[in-house]
Amino acid sequence: MADLFKEKKEKGLSILKASASSVSGEEMSKELSVSRAAVWKYIEALRKDGYEIEGISNQGYLLKSSPDLLLPMELKENLSSGYPGEIYWQRDIGSTNDEAKRLARLGTPGYSLVVAEEQAGGRGRRGRSWQSPAGGIWFSLILRPDFGISQASRISIFTAVVLAEAIALACGMKTGIKWPNDIFLGSKKVGGILIELSAELERVNFIVVGIGINANFAPDHLDPEVQETATTLLEVLGRPIDRKELLAKVANRFYEDLESALSDRYERYMIRWRELSIVLGKSVRISEGDKIFSGKAIDIAENGALIVDLDSGDRRLFDSGEVTLRLR
Amino acid sequence: MADLFKEKKEKGLSILKASASSVSGEEMSKELSVSRAAVWKYIEALRKDGYEIEGISNQGYLLKSSPDLLLPMELKENLSSGYPGEIYWQRDIGSTNDEAKRLARLGTPGYSLVVAEEQAGGRGRRGRSWQSPAGGIWFSLILRPDFGISQASRISIFTAVVLAEAIALACGMKTGIKWPNDIFLGSKKVGGILIELSAELERVNFIVVGIGINANFAPDHLDPEVQETATTLLEVLGRPIDRKELLAKVANRFYEDLESALSDRYERYMIRWRELSIVLGKSVRISEGDKIFSGKAIDIAENGALIVDLDSGDRRLFDSGEVTLRLR
Repeated sequence: MADLFKEKKEKGLSILKASASSVSGEEMSKELSVSRAAVWKYIEALRKDGYEIEGISNQGYLLKSSPDLLLPMELKENLSSGYPGEIYWQRDIGSTNDEAKRLARLGTPGYSLVVAEEQAGGRGRRGRSWQSPAGGIWFSLILRPDFGISQASRISIFTAVVLAEAIALACGMKTGIKWPNDIFLGSKKVGGILIELSAELERVNFIVVGIGINANFAPDHLDPEVQETATTLLEVLGRPIDRKELLAKVANRFYEDLESALSDRYERYMIRWRELSIVLGKSVRISEGDKIFSGKAIDIAENGALIVDLDSGDRRLFDSGEVTLRLR
Repeated sequence: MADLFKEKKEKGLSILKASASSVSGEEMSKELSVSRAAVWKYIEALRKDGYEIEGISNQGYLLKSSPDLLLPMELKENLSSGYPGEIYWQRDIGSTNDEAKRLARLGTPGYSLVVAEEQAGGRGRRGRSWQSPAGGIWFSLILRPDFGISQASRISIFTAVVLAEAIALACGMKTGIKWPNDIFLGSKKVGGILIELSAELERVNFIVVGIGINANFAPDHLDPEVQETATTLLEVLGRPIDRKELLAKVANRFYEDLESALSDRYERYMIRWRELSIVLGKSVRISEGDKIFSGKAIDIAENGALIVDLDSGDRRLFDSGEVTLRLR
């Protein structure tokens, strides 16, 4: 029942969107095969979602404006035809990754999206918090690749490249990847990735790719200490970007390219990752647990580890850790 | 409240166990610092758990027998002093791994045990079912190691060695490991391992090690097709083994040796794994997805992959797959 209502409501919206002038209640009731009273219910529901719909007597309904929300109805227009998976949207959420993991455990199919306008408990890597005010793009993708955990790091390389390229295209500026997978505009962070997985050793049950983009909000919505290292697209561009277009671009790329990226085209993503890296070839300081190392970042290994020639002369691989660039 | 009741009940049981003769209600009430009426409640609860306790008028309570169940109270007697974690027991369960994952997500500490007498939905690798009738040993360990997923395969090597050695000791016979980690007695499977994990790429949230041992039941409790490849300790020995001693031996070994096994002593476990392997040096057939390969199993890689020299002359690493030994 609920799904039928949603379906008719979405169809009603697309009828309104497709028409520059008003659409009569009679026409809508015919196209949706429902009563005029039912049409009115869909209109009311759409208004509640934030759509401004004018009711003109003796003429019908006119869509005046759509809300600036990442609603499934809006995203679907930007997703590739045939895009699989389901779309879940919440205005406020604890963490889209937590909700995506919960849905994945219930069997929600691959490529499904969990989207929120705001996260109260957004998470970054290693349990750190990730501030997620309204105007950003906060979402998680559920993936169900058919491989063992030894290949999971490929998803990280792929995601960083896709996100860096999508943001670059959206804002017309060069982006960079800071190992392992933060996206930078100039010297400041604008996007982040948190990949989580549930697996047997030989087989991944599901992977959740959490993506956060500091899009259409001013940096003063972030804590002062975060502002020192982070920026937003609004700050850099001086104007808002189309959030649903950017989100859909990332999701479409997963749908279209992930499978080949995990197999025969993986090497090309490694090459692209290296091109986008702002760390390789640089003098870096890496903290890993209590220890701090310094040296020169040489390359990434196939499993995503950072290869560093330490000042001590040793070469060392880092599976995890925090990198800072050294000035000299 | 519930925990205090459990605590007092368990203390009451140990008082009864420590005494060869009957213990008066008055003495028990004094030792437990509770009323005589409360003592009677603990006795009733213990009787419900399956303890046979005789009430002798004017003398007190005498423990006649303990149930053959893997109750926390029984296991604790066999676990090392200082053994951390909690013990959960259920007579019937769907799958101990599923329950352990649920508890782990709620924050249950490392080394906690989930034990069941029977599993209705016991699982083997890759979603296969694992028949788990009463009399077997079905349990899961929650682990919280501080490392990234690239090291998770070390847990597999460690677990296979620990389980093979514990079963060998319990039954006084040689055991073998069939890659990746089934435990064999002669040419038949007697134990299995299912390792699952929840992780970020850089950091494991938790690992659940599920262990199943075909212990004290006749093979005819298994489906005919399973009987062709599986045996039970009861069948091989002609007598039951002490289930709680065997379970505790495995858990204790995790508590005592896991940390060093994951770091400096890993190589020793690799060596021991190779000694116990019934596959290395043999002609094998491996099915991986739709494909079947044949060749000679040469070694395991550090990440647990099986290294096979194929009949075609190529060398190939298998992350997953099913191995059968070829006769020639």
